[in-house]
Amino acid sequence: MGSSEPTRILVAVSESTIKGYPHASISSTGAFDWTIEKIVRSNTSGFKLLFLHVQVPDEDGFDDMDSIYASPKDFRNVRHRDKVRGIHLLEYFVNKCHEIGIACESWIKKGDPKEVICREVQRIHPDLLVVGSRGLGPFQRVFVGTVSEFCVKHAECPVITIKRRADETPEDPVDD
Amino acid sequence: MGSSEPTRILVAVSESTIKGYPHASISSTGAFDWTIEKIVRSNTSGFKLLFLHVQVPDEDGFDDMDSIYASPKDFRNVRHRDKVRGIHLLEYFVNKCHEIGIACESWIKKGDPKEVICREVQRIHPDLLVVGSRGLGPFQRVFVGTVSEFCVKHAECPVITIKRRADETPEDPVDD
Repeated sequence: MGSSEPTRILVAVSESTIKGYPHASISSTGAFDWTIEKIVRSNTSGFKLLFLHVQVPDEDGFDDMDSIYASPKDFRNVRHRDKVRGIHLLEYFVNKCHEIGIACESWIKKGDPKEVICREVQRIHPDLLVVGSRGLGPFQRVFVGTVSEFCVKHAECPVITIKRRADETPEDPVDD
Repeated sequence: MGSSEPTRILVAVSESTIKGYPHASISSTGAFDWTIEKIVRSNTSGFKLLFLHVQVPDEDGFDDMDSIYASPKDFRNVRHRDKVRGIHLLEYFVNKCHEIGIACESWIKKGDPKEVICREVQRIHPDLLVVGSRGLGPFQRVFVGTVSEFCVKHAECPVITIKRRADETPEDPVDD
C-alpha cells in the first residue's frame, strides 16, 4: 500500500512555441495540472516531481534568420539567452510545486527531446513518465514528429501521455 | 490540488491463459499492484478503481476442440462456465480492494477486448485507463496483437501501459 519512498514522476516540459509567449507550452502545463489534480491530489508527501526540459540546440533557427553573427560573443549571447529561457521555464514549475508543497527537482539537457527523455529514464529510473501531447492528427504528425509516441514505445518505465484539451488548442494546432 | 471527487481509474483485467491456472493473468495483477503501490499509495479515499473484464466469445475454442455439443444445454453449460470464470476473476480484484479499503466497481463485457475497452472509456469517462501488457517483441506481436497499443492510440483518456516484469514472464512469453 505504498512504500515510504515517494513515487517519482518524471515530467518532460517544453517552452511554448508561440512567439512572444515566454512561458511553458500548453501541453506541458496541461500535463502538470493533470498530474497534480488526478494523481498527486492531496497526497503531496507521497510523490516527487522531476522536471526535465530538453533544449534543441537549433530550436531558435527560425527566430534567428535575420540575426547577424559577427563575433564569438554573438554566439555566447544566443547560448546565454537559451539558458535564461530554460531556467525561466523550470522556475515556473518549481514555483508551482513550492506553492503546492510537493518535493521536486528540475534540470535542463540538450539534444533530441525524445532520445534525451528516454536516456534520462534509463539513468534516473522514475516510477512514471508524464509527457504532454498536442494531440495532432496523422497528417500533422508526419511533419512535426511526436515525442510522446516515441517515449511510449521506448521509455523503460510506464508512460502517460496527456493530450491537450480541445478548448486549449491554438489556431495553428502545431503551435503549443 | 485534487477535487473532492475521487480519481476514477479503469483497469482492464484478463484471465490467465495458462491452463489449469484459474486466476487473473500475470499482466493484470501486475497492472493492479503497480496502480496501488505507485498511484493510490496510502490515499485510498482519493481513488476509485473500475475493473473491466472483456470475454472473447470463442476464447476457449482450443480447450473445447474435443468437446461434443449434443444439445442446447451443452451450449448453456459453456456459457455458464464462462460466466463463473469471469465472476471469479472480478471477485479476486474486488476482494483485494476490499482488503485495502479502496472503493471499486467491476463488470464483464463480451467482444473484442481492445474495441470494448475503448467503447467503455467513451461510456464511463474514467480519468485514467491502466492496461497490463505482456511486453512482447515485434515478432510475437504480429500474431497475438496487442490490446495495449490499440488503447494507447484510440482510448479517449490518458492510458498507462504496465509491462510485465521480466522475472514474471512465463516460459512461453505469449502466455500470461
